[in-house]
Amino acid sequence: MTKVLHVLLTGGVGSRLWPLSRQSRPKQYLDIFKGNSLFELSVMRNSNYAGELIVVGNSENQHLSVEALDKLKLEDYKSIEEATPRNTAPAIAFAAFAAQAEDILLVTPADHIIEDGEEYKKAIRSAVQLAAENFLVTFGVHPTKPETGYGYIEFTGDNVLSFREKPDKETADTFLKTGNFLWNSGMFCFKAGIYLEELKKYSPEVYQRSLQAWEKAENGKLELETSLQIPAISVDYAVMEKSDKIKVVKADFEWSDMGSFEAVYDYLKEQGQPVDQNGNMQIGSKKHTSFAGLQNCILVETEDANLVLAKEASQDVKQIYQELEQTNSALII
Amino acid sequence: MTKVLHVLLTGGVGSRLWPLSRQSRPKQYLDIFKGNSLFELSVMRNSNYAGELIVVGNSENQHLSVEALDKLKLEDYKSIEEATPRNTAPAIAFAAFAAQAEDILLVTPADHIIEDGEEYKKAIRSAVQLAAENFLVTFGVHPTKPETGYGYIEFTGDNVLSFREKPDKETADTFLKTGNFLWNSGMFCFKAGIYLEELKKYSPEVYQRSLQAWEKAENGKLELETSLQIPAISVDYAVMEKSDKIKVVKADFEWSDMGSFEAVYDYLKEQGQPVDQNGNMQIGSKKHTSFAGLQNCILVETEDANLVLAKEASQDVKQIYQELEQTNSALII
Repeated sequence: MTKVLHVLLTGGVGSRLWPLSRQSRPKQYLDIFKGNSLFELSVMRNSNYAGELIVVGNSENQHLSVEALDKLKLEDYKSIEEATPRNTAPAIAFAAFAAQAEDILLVTPADHIIEDGEEYKKAIRSAVQLAAENFLVTFGVHPTKPETGYGYIEFTGDNVLSFREKPDKETADTFLKTGNFLWNSGMFCFKAGIYLEELKKYSPEVYQRSLQAWEKAENGKLELETSLQIPAISVDYAVMEKSDKIKVVKADFEWSDMGSFEAVYDYLKEQGQPVDQNGNMQIGSKKHTSFAGLQNCILVETEDANLVLAKEASQDVKQIYQELEQTNSALII
Repeated sequence: MTKVLHVLLTGGVGSRLWPLSRQSRPKQYLDIFKGNSLFELSVMRNSNYAGELIVVGNSENQHLSVEALDKLKLEDYKSIEEATPRNTAPAIAFAAFAAQAEDILLVTPADHIIEDGEEYKKAIRSAVQLAAENFLVTFGVHPTKPETGYGYIEFTGDNVLSFREKPDKETADTFLKTGNFLWNSGMFCFKAGIYLEELKKYSPEVYQRSLQAWEKAENGKLELETSLQIPAISVDYAVMEKSDKIKVVKADFEWSDMGSFEAVYDYLKEQGQPVDQNGNMQIGSKKHTSFAGLQNCILVETEDANLVLAKEASQDVKQIYQELEQTNSALII
């Protein structure tokens, strides 16, 4: 019987969701989705398909993960605590080291929203089957608009032709028209042993440094000194774009990386959150809010900071965050 | 020696300044101008030029006026309490009835902002002198932009050629170019007796009904039944646009009716309130507020309601207020 482990990657701050998202409470821990956080939803969704859970996150988030798992009354999980963020390739390597070579890892981010249903079930089943056949599987989501904030996968059948970084608007339009491009969902499925083999083959330094750090880890807790030696590289870059064992599972579930207020807006609107006749929405506030002379505007209200933004300027929030960061503002903590 | 009385008209809600301005605290009582309200500033400014004060307001505002006058440690004033709003012609008639015929009334709204200085002093002196010569004096403010929200006075020397209602943009542009138009400031100066004579002559019903109501008043408190018989008409319409005893004093002080958030924005900006590089401003909030993708946008934050508006849409706030009024919303109370 195949053993499937859910590897939950829970790094990241989500600076584009400031002021909701803070260093002390990154977006995946915000209870803004029907009373649950994206972290919780991700754990619950994948518990249907995986027998075990490995949470890989950084030490600052550790207590938030524990809190969320307590809330879900989950006690039986493994925790890998990174000393410093090294991106996804090393994070997944640690999980692979903690597993058996034949274990199938279902790797997911903790901060995406996914419609849990038949389509998701079907996609996971296909992926697990391909993983059992020693393939490295990536999940490609059927794109519904020419989004420039996502990576794309060029495919034919279940084969990957190429990975494409965030395209410009024109290129994204072409991707949608040709019909053989999928959104790169950031979810993966493969055997722990196969992943490590391919990592060793295509990114030997990442493999070696990750292994050295792992050997120094105590109870899944990484040590800073050895961790700092690991190149910080994504799994796409380190393995997926290089290996010849890649397959893609075309997924038809609704999916969003909740990477900006535009995505949050779209999701909340679909969930029935009110917008006015000009498409304006408030988020986070329990107060009445009126808008005048504005279209598709979002007011984000928190206890110590407000953000007023044009929906289409959602990507600019990262810059606001960085400016506050540069002045050591307490508003991002 | 001429006796000058300051007649302070303090009706009105200021619905265009919602949610700052409420039925229970109209704009003239808001402490947003360096810790003082427009009502207080108006009392203080004119106390330099008038020996006595008559406050004419409606019964709902009475306690707010008393509160403001207490704050200024002013005890020696007359109070006229209207049972129902009848616009300015009757309000001024009540003050005139309460005064002696030879008393000069300096009539001002309670909700305008005016630069108190040499120019103001000069204008008041000229007006009092003309009033002493039995003229009805209106104050015309030198216009600094083609404002469509104000009334205009066409003048030559100190004579009024015509009063013009709020013009459209094109007409306002022409007014500014020709140079013989002034903003109608809503301030007046005349002898009580002359005003009543002219009111009797040009709007006899307003005069009669106001007198009947005044005769029923007790301690300056008007009675509802007789008050409801008085036509609700402005002093401009009832007297100023008809009398041949009108003079205009051209005033060069800075002036704003604070009739919209655009005016409040301009005033606060001039007073040093910060705006971001795109001209966005927050009002009422002590929180940090960031704006993204928006220009000349205003966030007004209060305890129970927010307003997000494009500065140029400031006039639309009245409509928001009216919609809330129609649904009996507690947010306007």
